[in-house]
Amino acid sequence: MKIGVADTMFARVDMFKIVRKALDDSMEPGIKLERYTVPGVKDLPIACKKLFGKGCDICLALGMPGPMPIDKTCAHEASQGLINLQLAENKHVLEVFVHLDEAENDKELYKITKSRTYDHAMNAIDLLKGKNKLQKFAGQGIRQGTRDIGPLMQ
Amino acid sequence: MKIGVADTMFARVDMFKIVRKALDDSMEPGIKLERYTVPGVKDLPIACKKLFGKGCDICLALGMPGPMPIDKTCAHEASQGLINLQLAENKHVLEVFVHLDEAENDKELYKITKSRTYDHAMNAIDLLKGKNKLQKFAGQGIRQGTRDIGPLMQ
Amino acid sequence: MKIGVADTMFARVDMFKIVRKALDDSMEPGIKLERYTVPGVKDLPIACKKLFGKGCDICLALGMPGPMPIDKTCAHEASQGLINLQLAENKHVLEVFVHLDEAENDKELYKITKSRTYDHAMNAIDLLKGKNKLQKFAGQGIRQGTRDIGPLMQ
Amino acid sequence: MKIGVADTMFARVDMFKIVRKALDDSMEPGIKLERYTVPGVKDLPIACKKLFGKGCDICLALGMPGPMPIDKTCAHEASQGLINLQLAENKHVLEVFVHLDEAENDKELYKITKSRTYDHAMNAIDLLKGKNKLQKFAGQGIRQGTRDIGPLMQ
Amino acid sequence: MKIGVADTMFARVDMFKIVRKALDDSMEPGIKLERYTVPGVKDLPIACKKLFGKGCDICLALGMPGPMPIDKTCAHEASQGLINLQLAENKHVLEVFVHLDEAENDKELYKITKSRTYDHAMNAIDLLKGKNKLQKFAGQGIRQGTRDIGPLMQ
Repeated sequence: MKIGVADTMFARVDMFKIVRKALDDSMEPGIKLERYTVPGVKDLPIACKKLFGKGCDICLALGMPGPMPIDKTCAHEASQGLINLQLAENKHVLEVFVHLDEAENDKELYKITKSRTYDHAMNAIDLLKGKNKLQKFAGQGIRQGTRDIGPLMQ
Repeated sequence: MKIGVADTMFARVDMFKIVRKALDDSMEPGIKLERYTVPGVKDLPIACKKLFGKGCDICLALGMPGPMPIDKTCAHEASQGLINLQLAENKHVLEVFVHLDEAENDKELYKITKSRTYDHAMNAIDLLKGKNKLQKFAGQGIRQGTRDIGPLMQ
Repeated sequence: MKIGVADTMFARVDMFKIVRKALDDSMEPGIKLERYTVPGVKDLPIACKKLFGKGCDICLALGMPGPMPIDKTCAHEASQGLINLQLAENKHVLEVFVHLDEAENDKELYKITKSRTYDHAMNAIDLLKGKNKLQKFAGQGIRQGTRDIGPLMQ
Repeated sequence: MKIGVADTMFARVDMFKIVRKALDDSMEPGIKLERYTVPGVKDLPIACKKLFGKGCDICLALGMPGPMPIDKTCAHEASQGLINLQLAENKHVLEVFVHLDEAENDKELYKITKSRTYDHAMNAIDLLKGKNKLQKFAGQGIRQGTRDIGPLMQ
Repeated sequence: MKIGVADTMFARVDMFKIVRKALDDSMEPGIKLERYTVPGVKDLPIACKKLFGKGCDICLALGMPGPMPIDKTCAHEASQGLINLQLAENKHVLEVFVHLDEAENDKELYKITKSRTYDHAMNAIDLLKGKNKLQKFAGQGIRQGTRDIGPLMQ
């Protein structure tokens, strides 16, 4: 099986390296990565489409949108494109976006990026294994990149 | 007949359990549930598509979007994808979203979640029975999750 | 010929009844109505698609979106879906949305609802008769539900 | 060749008449107009699609959206539909929207409407003649309806 | 190979000329340009589609959206259309938009326009050479038109 990984020049972290680490840690021998680097998040939908064209079973779309209103709009457009793509291909694309204004400093931002990318890489591996694999986490208030908020006190 | 139920790890309530309860209460013997858990609301459109691929006749898309502007955008993108999916599949997807900022405390939020999910599960069962089943409620100011507002005083 | 009428449980007026009245008043003997009731406005695109599947030549999508920002978003998503549907089906859907915050009181809101629904039902009948039927009203500042604003003073 | 012209009852100016004038002024003998009037801007995408179905080679979508936030949303939805339509048909639709809050008085608004409609009708005629026809205006800061802003001082 | 270049009359700089310069500087003998000028950014999606129809392998969509809210909406609609087009054609379109309110004066705006257009023309050439060509820039915080922000300090 093959995970497509689309990443950007715009991002400020080599997010692909984190996916590689997660896959290594997962000790899944049968999964390969295929990478495609594009300028920015708006190029991720077509990048993922091309990765599916190369036989990928699922994709990770990695990006770090900027802090300005125009950047939020770009991220929104990319997200809408990624959803459309999934419906056209009948395959998952896990969007891993870290917004450059999510943290107060570089160190914190790096930590979020590492954690969110790592967690979603693990999710992608689980989704490859079938539709019941993530069921045990349903309704658990899971967050990627920040602390899990947990289920509601009833 | 089969109802597809897509739910998320992000949600803070096991919303699937509520659907199961509604189906049990409905005493409809011929209806089965098929479940698919994904990370967050943006993964619900593809999850529902995959559920349709497994023979579901209608889907429930269960999610609990967060309170931040970015979460509202995510929910909007998911909703647009769910509408596109319905048109492509010619099948209903009832969206059951409970926003984490809808209530003042956890208890109230849980109550809304339970009620909205339960009510929409019942709606799904009715829609399976044909296009005239919900007609008696038309224009009645029905709300799911909160008190019905009722028809206008004329 | 057949006009599909999709309406909602969320609405606070039986808008279908107004369409029925307009059709009766029009004295068009050859036109039938087919009705489909769904929970809310986001279910209207798929409802209209199903009505087209039952042989309708045009649809009316009747809804009364709520007053909150989330309701505005829902209406927007529904509208986008209705436009996509029209392009896919090559058929008109006239959207008749009355926003619950459009009027200061229930009486006024009912009046708008009645007038807008009635007028658009008449428009639907005209559109069934061919593309030149509404031409005489072009550029006349016609409003449905409120007073016509009229053409610009030049 | 044939230019489709879709216009609305909502508009406050007979914009079609201005297109007719532009075509007459252009002295292009081989071009015909086909008109379709619909209630408002959200009906323009399907109107244009129907005009393409009648053999039009290009369309003008004429509308005058209102001044309220809801009107802006309607215009946005219409625009998105018009872009989708163009991609589906592989044909141009020039959108000619004049917002009712663009000018301070009726006289000014009429002037903008006349100028923008006229200019885009001329653009449509040029686009019918081939992809190089507008090249000489590229980067010139051309505006339709208001004064050209011109190229940047470098 | 052929790069399609769609540009606008609305823009205030002859952005095509900058693409031509970049291609000359690249010393790539086998790449040709095909140009299509349209009125504004909302016409860019169909322009790019027509360029793909003429055998282009990748497109640059060049535009300079205005400073008003309505202009931001236009740019957003164009962007969404460009993403949809890419997915339909399975080809890249690099969007090169310079917003007229990005700089404090004409000189600065020209500089951004020149740099962003030039850089994306180079990106287009690289993408034509294959999916691994931009990989060395991944996560480097690259910006087009303004100074690179660089990777995060970890």
